Amino acid sequence: MKRRIRYLSIAALAGLIFSIVSVRFAIAQATSNSVPFIGAQVFIEPGQTPQEIDHWFHILQQNGLKVARIRMFETYMHKSDGTWDYSLFDNAFQSAEKYNIKVIGTLFPATPFSDVGGFKFPQSEEHLKSIANYIQHVVTHFKKSNALLAWVLINEPGGGVPDTKYSTQKFNEWNAAHPDSAFNAKGYPIVNFDQERFQVYYNTWFLSWLAKEVHKYDPGRPLHVNPHAIFNNASQYDFPAWRKFLTTLGGSAHASWHFGYFNRDEYDVAMSANSEMIRSGAGPLPWLMTELQGGNNIYSGGVPMCPTKEEIAQWLWTIVGTGGIGAIFWTLNPRASGREAGEWALLNFQDQPSDRLQSTSEVAAVINKNSQLFAQAKVDESGISILYTRESMWTEEDSQTRGTYYEGRAVGGVMKSAIGYFETLSEMGIQSDFKEIGEYDFSGADYTGKTIILPHQVAIPAKYRADLENFVRNGGTLIVSGLTAFYDGHMHNVMQTNFPFESLFGGNIKEFKLVGNEFELHINNPYMTLPAHLWRGTIDSHGAVPIGTSNSEATAVINTFGKGKVVWVPSLLGIGARLKGDEPLASFLNEEATSSISNIDFRFQTWQEGMMLKTLKSGSSFITIVINKSNRIKNIELEMKKSLRPAVLFANKGGSALGRHIIISPEETMVIQWK
Amino acid sequence: MKRRIRYLSIAALAGLIFSIVSVRFAIAQATSNSVPFIGAQVFIEPGQTPQEIDHWFHILQQNGLKVARIRMFETYMHKSDGTWDYSLFDNAFQSAEKYNIKVIGTLFPATPFSDVGGFKFPQSEEHLKSIANYIQHVVTHFKKSNALLAWVLINEPGGGVPDTKYSTQKFNEWNAAHPDSAFNAKGYPIVNFDQERFQVYYNTWFLSWLAKEVHKYDPGRPLHVNPHAIFNNASQYDFPAWRKFLTTLGGSAHASWHFGYFNRDEYDVAMSANSEMIRSGAGPLPWLMTELQGGNNIYSGGVPMCPTKEEIAQWLWTIVGTGGIGAIFWTLNPRASGREAGEWALLNFQDQPSDRLQSTSEVAAVINKNSQLFAQAKVDESGISILYTRESMWTEEDSQTRGTYYEGRAVGGVMKSAIGYFETLSEMGIQSDFKEIGEYDFSGADYTGKTIILPHQVAIPAKYRADLENFVRNGGTLIVSGLTAFYDGHMHNVMQTNFPFESLFGGNIKEFKLVGNEFELHINNPYMTLPAHLWRGTIDSHGAVPIGTSNSEATAVINTFGKGKVVWVPSLLGIGARLKGDEPLASFLNEEATSSISNIDFRFQTWQEGMMLKTLKSGSSFITIVINKSNRIKNIELEMKKSLRPAVLFANKGGSALGRHIIISPEETMVIQWK
Amino acid sequence: MKRRIRYLSIAALAGLIFSIVSVRFAIAQATSNSVPFIGAQVFIEPGQTPQEIDHWFHILQQNGLKVARIRMFETYMHKSDGTWDYSLFDNAFQSAEKYNIKVIGTLFPATPFSDVGGFKFPQSEEHLKSIANYIQHVVTHFKKSNALLAWVLINEPGGGVPDTKYSTQKFNEWNAAHPDSAFNAKGYPIVNFDQERFQVYYNTWFLSWLAKEVHKYDPGRPLHVNPHAIFNNASQYDFPAWRKFLTTLGGSAHASWHFGYFNRDEYDVAMSANSEMIRSGAGPLPWLMTELQGGNNIYSGGVPMCPTKEEIAQWLWTIVGTGGIGAIFWTLNPRASGREAGEWALLNFQDQPSDRLQSTSEVAAVINKNSQLFAQAKVDESGISILYTRESMWTEEDSQTRGTYYEGRAVGGVMKSAIGYFETLSEMGIQSDFKEIGEYDFSGADYTGKTIILPHQVAIPAKYRADLENFVRNGGTLIVSGLTAFYDGHMHNVMQTNFPFESLFGGNIKEFKLVGNEFELHINNPYMTLPAHLWRGTIDSHGAVPIGTSNSEATAVINTFGKGKVVWVPSLLGIGARLKGDEPLASFLNEEATSSISNIDFRFQTWQEGMMLKTLKSGSSFITIVINKSNRIKNIELEMKKSLRPAVLFANKGGSALGRHIIISPEETMVIQWK
Repeated sequence: MKRRIRYLSIAALAGLIFSIVSVRFAIAQATSNSVPFIGAQVFIEPGQTPQEIDHWFHILQQNGLKVARIRMFETYMHKSDGTWDYSLFDNAFQSAEKYNIKVIGTLFPATPFSDVGGFKFPQSEEHLKSIANYIQHVVTHFKKSNALLAWVLINEPGGGVPDTKYSTQKFNEWNAAHPDSAFNAKGYPIVNFDQERFQVYYNTWFLSWLAKEVHKYDPGRPLHVNPHAIFNNASQYDFPAWRKFLTTLGGSAHASWHFGYFNRDEYDVAMSANSEMIRSGAGPLPWLMTELQGGNNIYSGGVPMCPTKEEIAQWLWTIVGTGGIGAIFWTLNPRASGREAGEWALLNFQDQPSDRLQSTSEVAAVINKNSQLFAQAKVDESGISILYTRESMWTEEDSQTRGTYYEGRAVGGVMKSAIGYFETLSEMGIQSDFKEIGEYDFSGADYTGKTIILPHQVAIPAKYRADLENFVRNGGTLIVSGLTAFYDGHMHNVMQTNFPFESLFGGNIKEFKLVGNEFELHINNPYMTLPAHLWRGTIDSHGAVPIGTSNSEATAVINTFGKGKVVWVPSLLGIGARLKGDEPLASFLNEEATSSISNIDFRFQTWQEGMMLKTLKSGSSFITIVINKSNRIKNIELEMKKSLRPAVLFANKGGSALGRHIIISPEETMVIQWK
Repeated sequence: MKRRIRYLSIAALAGLIFSIVSVRFAIAQATSNSVPFIGAQVFIEPGQTPQEIDHWFHILQQNGLKVARIRMFETYMHKSDGTWDYSLFDNAFQSAEKYNIKVIGTLFPATPFSDVGGFKFPQSEEHLKSIANYIQHVVTHFKKSNALLAWVLINEPGGGVPDTKYSTQKFNEWNAAHPDSAFNAKGYPIVNFDQERFQVYYNTWFLSWLAKEVHKYDPGRPLHVNPHAIFNNASQYDFPAWRKFLTTLGGSAHASWHFGYFNRDEYDVAMSANSEMIRSGAGPLPWLMTELQGGNNIYSGGVPMCPTKEEIAQWLWTIVGTGGIGAIFWTLNPRASGREAGEWALLNFQDQPSDRLQSTSEVAAVINKNSQLFAQAKVDESGISILYTRESMWTEEDSQTRGTYYEGRAVGGVMKSAIGYFETLSEMGIQSDFKEIGEYDFSGADYTGKTIILPHQVAIPAKYRADLENFVRNGGTLIVSGLTAFYDGHMHNVMQTNFPFESLFGGNIKEFKLVGNEFELHINNPYMTLPAHLWRGTIDSHGAVPIGTSNSEATAVINTFGKGKVVWVPSLLGIGARLKGDEPLASFLNEEATSSISNIDFRFQTWQEGMMLKTLKSGSSFITIVINKSNRIKNIELEMKKSLRPAVLFANKGGSALGRHIIISPEETMVIQWK
Repeated sequence: MKRRIRYLSIAALAGLIFSIVSVRFAIAQATSNSVPFIGAQVFIEPGQTPQEIDHWFHILQQNGLKVARIRMFETYMHKSDGTWDYSLFDNAFQSAEKYNIKVIGTLFPATPFSDVGGFKFPQSEEHLKSIANYIQHVVTHFKKSNALLAWVLINEPGGGVPDTKYSTQKFNEWNAAHPDSAFNAKGYPIVNFDQERFQVYYNTWFLSWLAKEVHKYDPGRPLHVNPHAIFNNASQYDFPAWRKFLTTLGGSAHASWHFGYFNRDEYDVAMSANSEMIRSGAGPLPWLMTELQGGNNIYSGGVPMCPTKEEIAQWLWTIVGTGGIGAIFWTLNPRASGREAGEWALLNFQDQPSDRLQSTSEVAAVINKNSQLFAQAKVDESGISILYTRESMWTEEDSQTRGTYYEGRAVGGVMKSAIGYFETLSEMGIQSDFKEIGEYDFSGADYTGKTIILPHQVAIPAKYRADLENFVRNGGTLIVSGLTAFYDGHMHNVMQTNFPFESLFGGNIKEFKLVGNEFELHINNPYMTLPAHLWRGTIDSHGAVPIGTSNSEATAVINTFGKGKVVWVPSLLGIGARLKGDEPLASFLNEEATSSISNIDFRFQTWQEGMMLKTLKSGSSFITIVINKSNRIKNIELEMKKSLRPAVLFANKGGSALGRHIIISPEETMVIQWK
C-alpha cells in the first residue's frame, strides 16, 4: 500500500524531492538546507579481507568523508550455480554502518571483467530479464542496511547504441510510434535525426525502466545517475525527462578522460562548466558530482595525469560553489587487477592518505565547521545563461567529412563556442548558467536583467522562436554569434528560406565566408577588435543597427525588440577567444550584457587572466570562491554591490582578503565569507 | 527509322559530333566555331515555389549565363504509388524556356537523401531495371522541352566498386572474357591488375549502357559526363573509350574537394592541369567544365574555402584558355537541407548575386562582346606533352605500405611528379598538354618540335616502347625522370631483366638509392643544380652522353636516337621542384626542350614565380590569358614569335599592356588580344 | 632404423647439436670452432635462365660468401595437374654445388603471389595436410643435394593468429588442456592472457610439427628459423621451447622494417640488441642472422633506406662480435615482380656487385684470412644482463587506450626502457646480454660480479620472486627502475596487496605520480641528476637506504640482501636516457654496477657518445670491434684489464690503434686483435 502511494506521488509530483523517514540523510541533502558532503568510491572486489574493507571505511570517517559509493557487482554475488552470496558486500555495508558512512550503491549487472565501465543498454529480452532478477535480489537484500542512502541506476549512461537485434527492435517500435516525414511543412526534404532522437529516448527509457524495477522492491529510495563526458555526450541526454524518476542528478567529471577540450590550467573552468551543465540538467532536483578523479593514471586516461592536492581543493570548492550537495571521488582504494588496477586512488599503496586525501580532508573540515553557513548556501545567480542545443550537436556530428581540421566545423565546434564564452565570463568573475536550451525557463513574464548567449548554435529548432522572442520582448538581452540558427532542428537551412529570426535579430544573413583559422572582427563605438574564427557572416539589416562592418557590409548589429535587445555577431567569437585570448570578448560582454552584469553581487573589477570567482548566498552573507590558475601572485580588486567585510574560511597558500582586495597565490583556492 | 540511321552514324563516326536540328545550340557548341558559355547548377528540390525557380532563371539571363544544369531527382518525381509527377521540374524547364536558358539535365535515379553525390554503379539486376525505367520516363518527358540541351549520364562516375553480389558477378563475367596469365612471356610471375582493369571496364560499360538507354528514347541527344577528382581518379577512366558514346566530356573541378595536391595560390594551375586532362581525354570532342565551386563551404569540402571574385575570374578564363566550350558553377542557389545545405552557391541568402556572380557576369560580358573572336579561338599548342600512365597509378596504389611518409612513394607520387613539370612550364608561360599516355597520338611521321615528358611514371606498358621509339626517331624530344619505366604494366621490374628502353634511353639503370627527402642533382654544361627527391638513379650508359655525375657515376644522360633525343635524369625532379622551387627545373627545360620552346608563339621572357600564361589562336590574332598569383605587382616581358600589338579585353585590377610588356596586379587576370 | 635413433637422440639431447656426416659444414658451424660465414638470399623464381642463376652463385663464390638461402616456393614446383617440377630449383642447387656454396632452404608452401612473407599458421586441417605433402616432396627431393645445409622451417614466424575456424578449434583444444581460473589464489580477479599464451604455444606447436615432418624424410638435417621484428614480436616467442627441435636460431633484422625504435645513427646498436636477443634465445645452440637488408627500398620498408657500404660492415661485424656464426643478406638478386621487385639487393641491375657487396666481400676476406682466430672466438661476457618479460609486453598491449602519446605507456614502453639501458652500456663500451627473463640461468650458486637490470618491466610473474632473491642473495646486483613489478603475470597489481618484492627491494611503493614527459631525478652521494620520464615513484622504505628523495620522500633506494644488493629507482630511467641523453645513466651504472664493470676486459675509459665496443675472446687473445656512429673523428682511450698490444685486422676509414688509444673516423668500423 505504501509503495503504491509513494509511486503515485512520484508520478504526480515529478521533479519534487523524496522525503521519507528511511532516507533521512537524503532528506537533508535533497532539501534546500543540507551540508555538502564529500565521499569516495570504495572499490569492493573479491580477494579483499574484511579487515581491509573495514580500514577503508574507517579512513573515510577519520577524514571527514561521509559517503561511500560501492559498485554492486553481480559477478561477485551471483554464483555459477544460481545462488547468491552477498557476504563480500555485506562486509562493506557493515563497516559503513560501524563508521556512520552512508552508501550509494551502483547497480552493476553481470558484464565481462574487461568491461570497465559496464554496459549502457540491454542486449536482449533475456538480458533485460536477467537485469530485473539481479535488481530484485540486490535491492531486496541491501535495502535492509541503515547505511544505504541511494541507488545509482547504472554507471555512466550514454555512448553508442549497440548494433544488436534487440536495439533494432526497440528502434523499430519507437519509430512506429514516432512516425516522421522526410519533408517539412513547406515541402522541403529534411533530416529527421531518427537515430539521434531514438538514442535520447532509449537512454531515458532504460533509466526509467531501471528506476521502476528498483522501486518495486525498495519504494521511495532515492535514485541517482551519473552522465559522463558531458561536453561530448550532452546531445544524448534529456535531463528534464529524467527528473521524473531521479531524486538527484550527478555526473562523472574525470580530468584525464573528460576535459579534452581544456588545457590543464583550465581544468577548474572545465569542472565549473561541467557542474553548471549538471546543475541545469537537475533543475529543481539537487545535484552532486558522482565521480571525480582521485589519483594517478598509468595506462588509463585520455590525457593521463595525477591530480595535485591543489587541484583537488579547486575541484571540490568549484562543485560546492556551483551548489552541488556532494562530490565523490573515484576512488578511495584502487582496483587490484586489469584495466585501472593501481590507478585513480586517494590512498597510497599502504592504504594511507595521499596528499590528495589530506587536501580533501581539509576541505571537508571547513565545510563541517561552517555547516550551517554551507547548508543554507545557494548559487548567487548572475542572470546570464549560455545555451547550447542538442540539435546543433547532432547536426555537427552528422556533417563531418574528411578534410582540413578547423575547430569550428569539427565535432566540438558547437560546444567549444559555448565554452569560449563560459571561460570569458569566468575570468570576469561571473558565473553563468550553461544549459541545453530546453532546460531554460522561458515561461517568465519579465526578463529584465537576464542575458542569454547563443554561441555558434548552428541548429535552433523552430519551437524556440516564440520562446526567444518572448524572452527579448520582455526585457532580456540576447547575444548571438557564429552560425547560430543556420539550420532548424532538421538540418534545413532556414537562412535561405524565410529566416524565422529575421524580426528578432533584425535582419538576415547575406553570406558566410570562410576567412581562415583566425581573423579580426571590428566593432565600432567603443571601437574594439574581437578575434574570430573561420567564417565571417554579413548581415542584410532590417531594422537592426550595425555596430561593425567589413567592406561596407554589416558584420555585427544590435536590434531592439520589445523591451530587450539582440546583439548579433555572426562570426565565431567563442572559439576566437579560445584561440587568441578572451580579454576582447570580455570587454564586448561588459558593454553588451550590462543589464545583467551591473546587477551581479560579486565580480572581478577587471578581467583577470586565469582567475575564477564563484559566489554563493547564504542568508544575509555571501561566500566567494576564488581560484588562481595563473602562474603569479594576484592582487585583485572585487566589484561588489554591497559593502561587506571578508572573513577567510579557507586558503591553502596563505591568501588574504582586505576590504575588496584579495591576494592569492598561484594554484590557491580561497573561500571567503562576506558579511 | 531516323533513330536507326542516327545510331549507325554514331557508331560509324565515333568521335564525331552530332549535328541534328533539335539540338541546334549543341551544334554551335560542339563544332569548332562556338562561343564559350558560362552556366550554373540550378538546384531544384521540393519546397521551392515556382516564383523562386523563375527568379533563378531570370538571374541567369540577367548575368549573361546561358546554361542551367539541373539534377533530375527520381526521388522527387516518382511517387510511392508508382506514378510520376514532373511538375516541380516542369516549372524549371518552363522558366528556362522563358529566359532562353539551355538546360543540361543530370540523370539522378533514386538514392537515399544522404547520398549527396549519387551512386556510381548499379547494385543489382533489379536496380538496373529500375534505372532503365527511370530513364524511359524522364527522358521521354523532358526531351519535349526546347530548353533541353543535353543529358549528363550520371553524376561524377568513379570511386570504388561496391562489394556486392552484382559487381562480383559482373567481375566474374568480365574476367572470364579477359583471361589473364599469372606469368609473362618470359615466365616471370606478374601482377595482372584484374581489379583495376575491371574497374576501368566497369565504368565504361555502365556509362555506355546509360547512353544506350537514353538514346532509346531521345536519339541523337548530346550526352555528357563529368569525371571528378581527376588527380586521384584518373587511373579509373578510359576516356578514349568514352568518346564512342559521348558528345562532350566534362569534369568536376572543385577547389575545396579536388585540389588537395595544390596550395591555394596554385589553384589556377590546378584548374589549368585539370582542364588539360579533360581536354586530352575529350580528344576530338569538345569539352567543358561541368562543375566548379561557386560559393562558401561550411561542413563540406576537404579544404574548405569561399572562392574570391578574383579566383572566379581566374578559373573561368583558365577554362576558356584551355579551349573549354563552357563552365558551369556548382551551384547558383544552395541546397536547402542536409549536407551541403546553404553552401556552394553564387547567390546569397537573399537570392541576390554575390561578388562571385558579379565577377562571372563580367567575364560573360567580355566573351559575349567578343563572340566571334572567342568562337574561333583554339588552343595555341606548345608541342610539349606531359604524360602519365594509368599503370603507374595502379602500381603505386598497390604498393603502399605503412611507414615513413615520402611524397614520391606515397599515393600521388606519380601524379605530383607530373604536376611538378606542369607547374614549372606554367611559370615559364608555357601551356603543356597533360595526357594519359594512351591519349597521345603516336601515329605521326614527324615529331620535330614536339616534346614528351615522362616524369616518375614508374610503370610503362610494353606496348609503348615502339611508340616512344617512333616518336624520338622521328624528331621528338623525350624527357624522362624519376623511376620512369621501373616496371612494365604488370608490376614486373624490367630494369633487371633486359631493359626494353636500353636502346632508346641509351643505357640501363645501375641502382636507385634512397638519399632523402631533398637532395641536389648536378648537371654540367651549363652547370646547374636541380632539387631532387628521395631516390637517385645511376646509369650504366650505352651510348648516351653523361651530363651529370655523382661519385663518378652518371646520374643524367642525353641519348641521340634517330632524329631526336632522350634526356634521362632518373631522380625525382618533379617533386623536387615542388619542394624547393621550380626555377632550376625551368632552366633545365629551357635548355633541353628548346626544339619545342623556340617555336612557341607566346611565353614569359624569363621564369615568373606565381604567374600563368595561356594562349589561344583565333584567326590571325592571338588571345593571351595572364594570371598573377604572386603577392606583388609584376612587370613582365613576353617572348613573342611575331610582332603584334596588344588590346586588353579584360583586366580586373587595372592591368595594362604596352608592346610586349604587361603590368599586372596580384590576383589579377588579364585577357589580351594580339593582332 | 637410423631415423628412429636420430629422432630419439634429438628428444633425449634436446638443446644439443647435430653432428652427422651428411651435414659436415653444419658441424663446423654448430660446434664451438666454426668460422663465421656470410651469405645471401638467392631469389629463385620462374623467368630466370640457368645462366643467370649460375652467375649469381659464381658471384657468391667470387666475393667470399659461402652460403645461399633459397625460398623453396611450392607455387613454382607443384603444377596445377598435381605433378612436381623441381627443375628451376635443381638449377640453383647444381650451381651451388659447382661453386661450393651451401644452401639453406626455406620451406615455403603455396600461398598467393601477393603474400610476400608467407603465412604463419595453417588455415585448416586440409591445409596442414597439403603442407605435409609439400614437405614430403621437397625435402625428399632436395636432401639428395650435397649443397643442402639446413632447412628453415617457415619464414619469419610470428604475427597475429588469423581468426579462422581452425585456429579457434586449436585454441579451444589448448584451452581445455590448460584450464585457467579467473581468480588468483587470494581470490582476486585476474587477467589470464589466454589469447597471448595460446599464441606462444601455437607458434611453438606449428614449428615443432614442421620439424617433425621434415625429419620424417630427412632425419638429422639441421633446422633453423628466423623470428622477425624482435623488438615488437618478442612476446610471442618461447625460444627455450624451440631449442628442442632447432639446430640453430636466427632472425630477420631489417633496418627499414624492424628498427623503428631507433634513429638511423643507432642502427648499429639496434643490430647489436637484436643479435643479443637472438643469442639469448638460442642459449646453447649456435645462432646466426638469417636476414639483413642488402639494398635499397622503393615502396617496401617502414623507414625506407639504402644501406651504405659502411653500415654493411658495421652490421656484419656487430653480428660477428655478438658470436653469430653467420649472416645472410636479403637478397643477392632482387625479386622481379610485385612487391619488393627491384628492391633489397646486393647486386645492381647489371648483376654486378654494389658497393655494399664489395664491403661484404672485404669483411669476408678478413674473416677467412684469420679463420682460426675467428673460429675460436667467443663473446667475452660482461656479466651484465638486461631482462625483459613477455608478460610486461602483454600487459602493455592489453592496456592501451586512446589518448595523449607518451612512450612509456604506449606499446613499446617496456622494450624501449630496456633499450635505453642497452644503448647506455653500449656507449660505455660494454656489451650486455638482452634476455627474456625465462632465458636467464637462475640455477647458479654464486652471482658475484653479475648484474641484472629490470627496466620498467611492469609485470613480473610470481615464479621469478625466488629466482631473483636467489640471484641477489648469492652476490648479484639487481638494478630496478620504472614500474617494474607493478603487476604480476596476470595483470594483478601486487604493489597494493602484499608486495612480493618488499623484502628483496627493501620497501614498498607509496605512489606513482605522472610528472610529465621529462623530469629530473636526483641521486645523492655522488650527487647526480638523471633524466626520467612520465611517472615518479616514491618508496616506503623497509630497510633499504634512500639515495634520492623528492619532497622528503624516497625516490631511489639501495637494499642489501644477502651477499648482493638491489638498486631501486622507480622512475623511467631507460626512456629518460633516450629522451635527454644517456651520459647521466652511464655515470649511475658506473657507480652501481661496479661489481660487474670492474671485471670487464675491455671498455671505454669514459662514456663515448655514438660509439660501440664489442669484445670477443679467442684463445689467449681478444678481438674488439669498435664502431664510430658519431659525426666526428674520435680519439678514444680503452680501459683494459690486461696489458695487451693491438693489431688492426680491419679498418675501413684508416683507423689506427696505439697502446690503449684508438683513432677512428665517423662511420668507421675497426676490428682489433689484442695479444
